[in-house]
Amino acid sequence: MKVNKDYYCVIMAGGIGARFWPMSRSSHPKQFIDILGTGETLIQSTFKRLTTLCPPENILIVTNGIYKDLVMSQLPEVSEEQVLCEPMRRNTAPCIAYANYKIYKQNPDASVVVAPSDHIILKEEGFIDTLDSALKAASENDWLLTLGIKPSRPDTGYGYIQYLEETVYPEDELIRKVKTFTEKPNLELAETFLESGDFLWNSGIFIWSLKSIMKSFRENLPEVDELFKKGIDVYNTPGEESFIQETYPVCKNISIDYGIMEKASNVYVRISDFGWSDLGTWGSLHDIRDKDEQGNAINGNNVMVYDTGDCIINMPADKLVVINGLKDFIVVEEEGTLLICRKSDEQQIRQIVNDVKIEKGEKYV
Amino acid sequence: MKVNKDYYCVIMAGGIGARFWPMSRSSHPKQFIDILGTGETLIQSTFKRLTTLCPPENILIVTNGIYKDLVMSQLPEVSEEQVLCEPMRRNTAPCIAYANYKIYKQNPDASVVVAPSDHIILKEEGFIDTLDSALKAASENDWLLTLGIKPSRPDTGYGYIQYLEETVYPEDELIRKVKTFTEKPNLELAETFLESGDFLWNSGIFIWSLKSIMKSFRENLPEVDELFKKGIDVYNTPGEESFIQETYPVCKNISIDYGIMEKASNVYVRISDFGWSDLGTWGSLHDIRDKDEQGNAINGNNVMVYDTGDCIINMPADKLVVINGLKDFIVVEEEGTLLICRKSDEQQIRQIVNDVKIEKGEKYV
Repeated sequence: MKVNKDYYCVIMAGGIGARFWPMSRSSHPKQFIDILGTGETLIQSTFKRLTTLCPPENILIVTNGIYKDLVMSQLPEVSEEQVLCEPMRRNTAPCIAYANYKIYKQNPDASVVVAPSDHIILKEEGFIDTLDSALKAASENDWLLTLGIKPSRPDTGYGYIQYLEETVYPEDELIRKVKTFTEKPNLELAETFLESGDFLWNSGIFIWSLKSIMKSFRENLPEVDELFKKGIDVYNTPGEESFIQETYPVCKNISIDYGIMEKASNVYVRISDFGWSDLGTWGSLHDIRDKDEQGNAINGNNVMVYDTGDCIINMPADKLVVINGLKDFIVVEEEGTLLICRKSDEQQIRQIVNDVKIEKGEKYV
Repeated sequence: MKVNKDYYCVIMAGGIGARFWPMSRSSHPKQFIDILGTGETLIQSTFKRLTTLCPPENILIVTNGIYKDLVMSQLPEVSEEQVLCEPMRRNTAPCIAYANYKIYKQNPDASVVVAPSDHIILKEEGFIDTLDSALKAASENDWLLTLGIKPSRPDTGYGYIQYLEETVYPEDELIRKVKTFTEKPNLELAETFLESGDFLWNSGIFIWSLKSIMKSFRENLPEVDELFKKGIDVYNTPGEESFIQETYPVCKNISIDYGIMEKASNVYVRISDFGWSDLGTWGSLHDIRDKDEQGNAINGNNVMVYDTGDCIINMPADKLVVINGLKDFIVVEEEGTLLICRKSDEQQIRQIVNDVKIEKGEKYV
């Protein structure tokens, strides 16, 4: 693989990751955590992975202003210029519009990968090959490409993409035209999708030429495009920050999926299979982690388990922990806060975090 | 109640309390812990309770040498003379023989209460009335008295005492002659005991005149009596410590129940009911503690529970703990060690502590 100077990456790192509380906190969300115990945080792995494709200085990180220092300290090779600080959460479309103009001023011929900072990819090589092919296709065609993951189970936690039969790109038969995007389905529908064979999980990873995505913004989200276009003279100058501070509050909150992908007619998907998970739930983390014979994924050097199975146990390295008789639980301690939660109730963690915030104060969440 | 100068108490405080690990540790066993969260450790409550009966200087505490400092610091009103240090565990008979001779040298006319340091008594007044009556009976008769607790459930964790119908002491009809002592029964047998109405729980609290118990040692455990008799000149002198250091290793390991009570013919029981528990198990602690509407007994100011019932939760005062979906569990953190254990498996805690000792080292147990 050769690094291409026309390739750019935008890493979206603004999430607050309440679902992984108390490991993930609003002051220290999931993307900044070594959630797999590999020695690298998720954003570090994501960044490293993308440097195979493009020069490190071509990678932009969009995050909330409060995480700027975290980004800079975890990615010391990144300059301040590369960290795009949002003053508030406005979903993915504004963040991409902002990055588009930043890149446009550097290189109007760029091809861009937009990727979340907190996903896990087990087959790195497959991922890079996929992106390489998708970038090539995007640079040659006016296509908005997304990566669709071959589903291995009827997961109700993902959106789905249906694709058309015909091949469209001789150099990569796995690129197809998108027929429909579907929101997270119920189990019955998810099972139908899985059986039909022409549905993929929506990974939230996008590939396009800068020209194509900017054109699509002009066509599909002109009000967002207009707002960010006004800053054309200040991007990559000292005036950028105050311009963004003024622009974000008046910009609408809208996702790239809803604002562009579901409307545009030139949307394509690359059928992919590289051991992907969005790590959206403790359950998905459990699926990926190494497990003992009883199915426990344990982080911590001093954890002793008896008659305990299918648990996720994340404990401070040296804390002595003895667990007897737990099945299908999450047991996590982080910064002196302990959570013990039935895995099937993990969707309640958001509510719990809310209760904690109200009853115990901001410092705990 | 008037304090009687002929009354003495012997508090047995040598236990290592492995069952309450990690709250109770070999370096800090159960009797030295404020296990109910009342602000007093169990030995402090026991000592205080007994000062209603006898002058504080008449209370002896028998413990292992390694706990001497703990005793002195928790009971500052006690002098070194009052703390009898065993160099090793030899069960209850040697400890009582030793205390007998210490008291004998001070007051051969003493009447003595022997009581464990780590039991809980909810109805203090009833306890004192009971002891007062038993002490009076013991001082007037050559009787070895034990307190038998009216059973409220078919508990298989206690030994049982069967008593005879006839009243024997006009001033207290609840004193009866003992028919048999029974070891911990199985559930079926325990149910039969409960139905029969003439069985009591063996509390391990004894009352006798010094003369009677010393006579009984001579008759039933002469070899133990002989050993401790040899020290008659050194008790309460600087020579006592080295004498005890030499005597204990050669003394047999035997309980007062097995060595005296089950053999002697002058054994009586006082039928009692003063809210007693030996706190031998987390379950028994759970029975006694205040509980929330879901039956959780919680210590800790920052514990939040969801869909959680019948648990014992003991957490450091200010630690934030969120528990979802636990039923019938023990969750305890002490000195940075966390235990999560199904209540029905609590008899395995001894084994767990053993594993911890072997795998992680002495410092954790």
